[in-house]
Amino acid sequence: MAKVVTFGEIMLRLQTYDHQRIIQATGFDATFGGGEANVAVSLAIYGHEAHFITKLPDNLVGDLCVSELRKYGLNTKYIARGGERLGVYYVEKGAAQRASTVTYDRKHSSIATAEAKDFDWETIFDGAEWFHFTGITPALSEEAAARCEEALKAAKKLGITVSCDLNFRKKLWTSEQANKVMSGLMQYVDVCIANEEDAEKVFGIKASATDITSGELSDAGYRDVAKQLADKFGFSHVAITLRESISASVNNWSALLYDGKDYYKSKKYHINIIDRVGGGDSFGGGLIYAMLEKYSMQDTIDYAVAASCLKHSIQGDFNVVSVSEVLNLMKGDGSGRVQR
Amino acid sequence: MAKVVTFGEIMLRLQTYDHQRIIQATGFDATFGGGEANVAVSLAIYGHEAHFITKLPDNLVGDLCVSELRKYGLNTKYIARGGERLGVYYVEKGAAQRASTVTYDRKHSSIATAEAKDFDWETIFDGAEWFHFTGITPALSEEAAARCEEALKAAKKLGITVSCDLNFRKKLWTSEQANKVMSGLMQYVDVCIANEEDAEKVFGIKASATDITSGELSDAGYRDVAKQLADKFGFSHVAITLRESISASVNNWSALLYDGKDYYKSKKYHINIIDRVGGGDSFGGGLIYAMLEKYSMQDTIDYAVAASCLKHSIQGDFNVVSVSEVLNLMKGDGSGRVQR
Amino acid sequence: MAKVVTFGEIMLRLQTYDHQRIIQATGFDATFGGGEANVAVSLAIYGHEAHFITKLPDNLVGDLCVSELRKYGLNTKYIARGGERLGVYYVEKGAAQRASTVTYDRKHSSIATAEAKDFDWETIFDGAEWFHFTGITPALSEEAAARCEEALKAAKKLGITVSCDLNFRKKLWTSEQANKVMSGLMQYVDVCIANEEDAEKVFGIKASATDITSGELSDAGYRDVAKQLADKFGFSHVAITLRESISASVNNWSALLYDGKDYYKSKKYHINIIDRVGGGDSFGGGLIYAMLEKYSMQDTIDYAVAASCLKHSIQGDFNVVSVSEVLNLMKGDGSGRVQR
Amino acid sequence: MAKVVTFGEIMLRLQTYDHQRIIQATGFDATFGGGEANVAVSLAIYGHEAHFITKLPDNLVGDLCVSELRKYGLNTKYIARGGERLGVYYVEKGAAQRASTVTYDRKHSSIATAEAKDFDWETIFDGAEWFHFTGITPALSEEAAARCEEALKAAKKLGITVSCDLNFRKKLWTSEQANKVMSGLMQYVDVCIANEEDAEKVFGIKASATDITSGELSDAGYRDVAKQLADKFGFSHVAITLRESISASVNNWSALLYDGKDYYKSKKYHINIIDRVGGGDSFGGGLIYAMLEKYSMQDTIDYAVAASCLKHSIQGDFNVVSVSEVLNLMKGDGSGRVQR
Amino acid sequence: MAKVVTFGEIMLRLQTYDHQRIIQATGFDATFGGGEANVAVSLAIYGHEAHFITKLPDNLVGDLCVSELRKYGLNTKYIARGGERLGVYYVEKGAAQRASTVTYDRKHSSIATAEAKDFDWETIFDGAEWFHFTGITPALSEEAAARCEEALKAAKKLGITVSCDLNFRKKLWTSEQANKVMSGLMQYVDVCIANEEDAEKVFGIKASATDITSGELSDAGYRDVAKQLADKFGFSHVAITLRESISASVNNWSALLYDGKDYYKSKKYHINIIDRVGGGDSFGGGLIYAMLEKYSMQDTIDYAVAASCLKHSIQGDFNVVSVSEVLNLMKGDGSGRVQR
Amino acid sequence: MAKVVTFGEIMLRLQTYDHQRIIQATGFDATFGGGEANVAVSLAIYGHEAHFITKLPDNLVGDLCVSELRKYGLNTKYIARGGERLGVYYVEKGAAQRASTVTYDRKHSSIATAEAKDFDWETIFDGAEWFHFTGITPALSEEAAARCEEALKAAKKLGITVSCDLNFRKKLWTSEQANKVMSGLMQYVDVCIANEEDAEKVFGIKASATDITSGELSDAGYRDVAKQLADKFGFSHVAITLRESISASVNNWSALLYDGKDYYKSKKYHINIIDRVGGGDSFGGGLIYAMLEKYSMQDTIDYAVAASCLKHSIQGDFNVVSVSEVLNLMKGDGSGRVQR
Repeated sequence: MAKVVTFGEIMLRLQTYDHQRIIQATGFDATFGGGEANVAVSLAIYGHEAHFITKLPDNLVGDLCVSELRKYGLNTKYIARGGERLGVYYVEKGAAQRASTVTYDRKHSSIATAEAKDFDWETIFDGAEWFHFTGITPALSEEAAARCEEALKAAKKLGITVSCDLNFRKKLWTSEQANKVMSGLMQYVDVCIANEEDAEKVFGIKASATDITSGELSDAGYRDVAKQLADKFGFSHVAITLRESISASVNNWSALLYDGKDYYKSKKYHINIIDRVGGGDSFGGGLIYAMLEKYSMQDTIDYAVAASCLKHSIQGDFNVVSVSEVLNLMKGDGSGRVQR
Repeated sequence: MAKVVTFGEIMLRLQTYDHQRIIQATGFDATFGGGEANVAVSLAIYGHEAHFITKLPDNLVGDLCVSELRKYGLNTKYIARGGERLGVYYVEKGAAQRASTVTYDRKHSSIATAEAKDFDWETIFDGAEWFHFTGITPALSEEAAARCEEALKAAKKLGITVSCDLNFRKKLWTSEQANKVMSGLMQYVDVCIANEEDAEKVFGIKASATDITSGELSDAGYRDVAKQLADKFGFSHVAITLRESISASVNNWSALLYDGKDYYKSKKYHINIIDRVGGGDSFGGGLIYAMLEKYSMQDTIDYAVAASCLKHSIQGDFNVVSVSEVLNLMKGDGSGRVQR
Repeated sequence: MAKVVTFGEIMLRLQTYDHQRIIQATGFDATFGGGEANVAVSLAIYGHEAHFITKLPDNLVGDLCVSELRKYGLNTKYIARGGERLGVYYVEKGAAQRASTVTYDRKHSSIATAEAKDFDWETIFDGAEWFHFTGITPALSEEAAARCEEALKAAKKLGITVSCDLNFRKKLWTSEQANKVMSGLMQYVDVCIANEEDAEKVFGIKASATDITSGELSDAGYRDVAKQLADKFGFSHVAITLRESISASVNNWSALLYDGKDYYKSKKYHINIIDRVGGGDSFGGGLIYAMLEKYSMQDTIDYAVAASCLKHSIQGDFNVVSVSEVLNLMKGDGSGRVQR
Repeated sequence: MAKVVTFGEIMLRLQTYDHQRIIQATGFDATFGGGEANVAVSLAIYGHEAHFITKLPDNLVGDLCVSELRKYGLNTKYIARGGERLGVYYVEKGAAQRASTVTYDRKHSSIATAEAKDFDWETIFDGAEWFHFTGITPALSEEAAARCEEALKAAKKLGITVSCDLNFRKKLWTSEQANKVMSGLMQYVDVCIANEEDAEKVFGIKASATDITSGELSDAGYRDVAKQLADKFGFSHVAITLRESISASVNNWSALLYDGKDYYKSKKYHINIIDRVGGGDSFGGGLIYAMLEKYSMQDTIDYAVAASCLKHSIQGDFNVVSVSEVLNLMKGDGSGRVQR
Repeated sequence: MAKVVTFGEIMLRLQTYDHQRIIQATGFDATFGGGEANVAVSLAIYGHEAHFITKLPDNLVGDLCVSELRKYGLNTKYIARGGERLGVYYVEKGAAQRASTVTYDRKHSSIATAEAKDFDWETIFDGAEWFHFTGITPALSEEAAARCEEALKAAKKLGITVSCDLNFRKKLWTSEQANKVMSGLMQYVDVCIANEEDAEKVFGIKASATDITSGELSDAGYRDVAKQLADKFGFSHVAITLRESISASVNNWSALLYDGKDYYKSKKYHINIIDRVGGGDSFGGGLIYAMLEKYSMQDTIDYAVAASCLKHSIQGDFNVVSVSEVLNLMKGDGSGRVQR
Repeated sequence: MAKVVTFGEIMLRLQTYDHQRIIQATGFDATFGGGEANVAVSLAIYGHEAHFITKLPDNLVGDLCVSELRKYGLNTKYIARGGERLGVYYVEKGAAQRASTVTYDRKHSSIATAEAKDFDWETIFDGAEWFHFTGITPALSEEAAARCEEALKAAKKLGITVSCDLNFRKKLWTSEQANKVMSGLMQYVDVCIANEEDAEKVFGIKASATDITSGELSDAGYRDVAKQLADKFGFSHVAITLRESISASVNNWSALLYDGKDYYKSKKYHINIIDRVGGGDSFGGGLIYAMLEKYSMQDTIDYAVAASCLKHSIQGDFNVVSVSEVLNLMKGDGSGRVQR
């Protein structure tokens, strides 16, 4: 059981019932989600001591958020309280040719305005083996980017493995801003997770002609992107997820792992989607778990992809599946036969 | 922003929860729907001044109906109030090989017994550019057929473009009755919307051997039907929708447009269905919008089919999608990627 | 209208909402289900006088169970009341590659501890034409197995046709136990229903190499299993269901019937699944109905498979479909077109 | 266990969720209710063989209605099927000073247009001890009034005790119409149930100055009304319910019984209301039960009032309480202590 | 039908289901509310041409808000779109001794940052008879206070009657700030609405010793407050609402009106509460309606109090009651008898 | 922050929606509850390190239970896993004169069959200040009684304060059995919590003539009971709760504390009930909190009663109220005014 720390924003996720559009809404299912929290939940469920670091307002909604994290076994003791608000995102679940939509209301959140004194990184990282963040955290605000850098420095000093999911969000910053900030942070990162779009939008690293909306993806192109990323920033590992969106209801899903030497390709899953928001984060959670468990490279990418394949069948951002369920799928049983 | 008028019946739609059968029901989701109301809602959402003309009982349920129409931006000021009742239809959503069922309880409705004095067509049509009705309205009752003819005469006199969706309903009248009444009304119609079944059931116009339950449809046959319709009644345009029902869960959907000279075929969409009731009406709404916007013939049929493709992903009769969403799909992005 | 009797356990089925996992549950949809009750409900809905025999606790939850059975037209007058409890099973509905799970809490139930005096088989079987049970009943407990044998002896004495669905449940007993008990009961059985797994697990009867999780099934193998079963126990008919699990969302479904002379193969259905728990029981209900109606062998297997195909589109264990709906599908209309 | 028959209309009851007004509705809880059906359900739950006679449309909603009645143990075999429709009533539950509203959509129902051949009264009444109807049935239509008279004549011929709840409904007929029709039917009635308003509105029988909206009711006045009713029509018993509406949330509830000689006054209950629709019918059900059980006059009125007191705590029209619960309250325990 | 304009903030109201606390929430009922919007909805429902002026973000949640306002007949054409966000407030409904809680997340809203050019007051006020705002609007931000003053000046110039509900919110500003800003705005106000707390907190105007948490209120004290307010600012009318909080479930509710000469006291209602948020606003809506209709002073206060009494029985901020329902209560029928 | 340990059974609480009776149920709200768990949750929410000790089955429902406890901040690390099942109780919420009902299905639970080796009391109690159990735990089974005694001996040895709520459950054991077992355990108890019924049913200790169903309770009688209990078993403190059940909707609630010398009487609260199951446990939680905080005797009983008064307004067994909310009520504000 390793201590793992993730840092970032968590928001209240308000999703319309069934497949309603927001204009039809008379209520919302309320859960919570955020890139780094989602990864931490995966690791807590897999049995590790997972800490999620953020700042939440000191009100009833902040309390609800903490209690939901606690429910899934997360350690919440280093969460700072205070600031103005908890971010909210409204989700419409798409279907067929209609895309899911995510409407953010996240500005001025407590985490985006957190101060250095909110987090005592030495205490937080004491005994930790892994630190994970995503490109969303530094994109939130200058303060958040500064907090991120403080965390990374502390982690590096303590020899903690660091992973980063690039996770470019065009509503938070431009490619120029992302490039500048993220380039400065990559020196602390060991394991990089991305999709082709991220690599291009953040670092201008581009694979050979591939149209991501066409649903056809080129393996060679992705290998190229992985290698360029590793070469440029010295990552020990680069993982790239490959999503083929056939429609909002059906996707293909696979991934690629590069360890600086070889490329490992996962199986490709054909998925009837229940909820795909959080799919990428569940991949990160699976990848970190497999690496902490010292799986072989092939098993690592297979575990990460199987874990995230299952996420697409789960409501909400959190990937509530067990290690044995992931292993079962990874070993080949995707038949969905009833487990009695 | 054009003024568009539609005229017909709207009913309370009582649908069982999830995929329950009616015998399992302990409650119903309540929305409203009706061919002409559905078209009007589409046009209101696309930004036009859409008026829906009907008669509703002067009670709390009639008030609810008006308020739901208002919600989507419809102009409801010419809706007559009075009469006995609002029609109801009970919907079971099918899945897999089990068909959706619609159980009507629409007799004796206020609109079916409306009188000439309920509608002042000159005022209603003042400044209008388009009038739309479907074959359901004259099928409701002799009174409704008479009201329909009054409206058509007034519209024609004012030079308003008239569209009609043939929409044959075997529970409302026989082919013989339909043929007689509809033949008399077609002289006022410019744009005709139909599917193969309608043309045959209403006017005996039949394409070469095609089994509509087999899921295979012949292009040539449909072109033939379109031409026969246009030739017989002098329509400026005939649009024919082509549905291939693979199951209650999966359909293919496309359409054909004939402008008296050329045939324009849309793309064919493979759809995982959320709710297909109202699919044909959303096609009509899209077609009228595109023609009001003076789209090219190809763009017109593409817009109408893309709009109605999206409808299949939406709960309820009303096609709550924006122009930009339709254009996005029409231009080729049916990938359903999350819109953040 | 024939009198049909089935005997076994019925449990409260607690299913999470939508596709939630149990750990996400804040409530459960409550229905009831059990192999023999499910068959009886099918027969009641098809119009026969169906009696379900069990023992239920004498409390409010037992009352709810009786009332739910009555709702679907079952005759509940021979249900014994008393004992400790009603069994419960918790259901998570799977999707995509995530399997549905069933968590049983059925030990110590009233039926598992029922005494001989709870059932007066002579009265119960008076005028009956058919008796059905499954391999679950004798697996519940020694008492239940004894009750089962008492029922079978009484049925045989009265010349009632007996059917048995082998239904092996590994959580209730081992193959050794099953083999021993079931071998003793098969002498009373005329019609045997099984799937390949059952035949192997209960009687060690095995078809040639087929991997049931691979989704590919061999016809020849199943014919072989059917023949071996009939030869060994003297069954007049053996029916074998063939499920190909592509995923938890999509299955293929067909079946085979052997009448001691010829093999009859049904059509294979490709199914988008709403709820597959109870699928096998709906096959049994369809088979018994078709045999009571003296359908031809081919029509019998076609009816049974069409009935159970439709079950996969229905929420809950009970197959609430009408004879005309089954016939319609059996005759070829699986298009799912809206029935207005 | 006596055979009891009731005859009248049952409707689909569509109630908004919680305390929503209809204009806020996005769905409805669906139950069924009707004066005579409600009485029959009470008697079925109390353990008698209760038959409810009506006519229902031969569609899925009619099937749902039958299955709901069966659920509560009613015998539905003499229900005629056919005709146009099932009536619907929309219910808004009031609270505080806001009254509950009931919006009827019941015209043209199957029962209102039932024909003489729909009911074979000799068979229906075979072995019956009691027949109950209310003033609603003859008010539905001339046909329904004729059916009612046919039933009454058959009942009288067979010596069956007849009870009638006057139940004046001003939306169905005028006082003049009611007086004329009801006066003709009273000759067949033994037991009359009324409230002061009914007696006045139907027969012009009026107690001394009492303002029913003031919440203060005069005992003497009610005794007078009961006596006038009995004297005029020769009823063996007259029961009068006394409701003091403090608000839509709080009522006082009591009743008076006159057996032609003495007056029996019940306890008065102070009630926090959950659902008061069906309150009067539950009184009728309790009264008939107590008389069938040959309770003393005092116990009879006490049972009827306790039964209907409990109804006010129950959702829906049907009074799902057991005999022992009624007896417990009638004997004085209204403390509402948790029953473990 | 008069044109009435109100101006202020509207927020998404997220309320836990039933009486859940926020920490128990897994979803929220979603409605909208805000002091001035609530008043405008009342007036629209009463039949006036009501305009609500605000600024909403140009996203799907802003669209939902507009559509909900439209549903109740509000005119939304002058609503500005843009800015960062829509405010949110989380509501826990209290019961018994547990108070309801409201958790605001309203900072940085579009309306709080609206600019002068967002509103063309001359056009907005064209033909208007009445303008209403509350003390919440200027409390939102300096910008909002400036917008408020611009509106007031424009209204005054056009001779429009102006009403203001003082509505002190301690989380938005201090008494000092309120005093300063509000004192500057009162010169434009004709009709002032307040409760004792408001008068004291905003202007330091205090009645003789009354403990508002004790539930006992002194008439003389309130008359004194009303007179002081009118004398100080020259209001033509001052209305003061008097709430006695017995518990979160039960309140007494009445009010006082002062027209500069005489005092008019309303009846006092004893209320079992469904939802009391928005109670004060419904009083304002009733008061303005009654004054527009030129009711007598006594009828005016009676109408306003009856209207707001009914609001306490209604879910959500909006007082969806009709004029006839208010008149019925105002005339004395608070019995809550079922309206059939 | 003190370490507090409680030990006992927790069950899945299945409650019908709204005020439905079980026979009307189509689903259940699912929460968890149990005397000792409820107390522990109170203490965790008040900020103490609360450990709940039990045994849960090692399945998905056991996992759900653990996660729900964790959500409220309980420390679950000493919960044993294994055994057959988790107990279930079905709850119907009463109203007016209809009592709530609780139907238990708790036999054969994991905790009732727990073995000595499941709990390492020395480790569990390490650093603990308080141990709490109720009379339910030893009543479950002989094994549970033995576990209880083991815990008590360990606690006593370590000088931990022990409290016991007598909590007599007539469905679990007889008075004779209770007397025998509980008498043996009382030697370890310091603080005893009871109601009059408990004292009489468990120890035959009876106050002077008081009819608990009459709603009138005698102070003197209760003082007498408290003194008898303290004298007999040497308790340092005895607290007695006093419930006056006016109806299932309205109760009065107060309590008495005896410290061996003086009697302290709390205020009496008049409560409109939302959910009273768990009311007694919330009193225990409040009492322990106040004693841990070293409140004066009067403040202790006031805090405990205010805490449990608030519980009656909360859905579910757990008393999710904060210390400040309890203090606020205890200090006199029961007005339920909205907290903004």
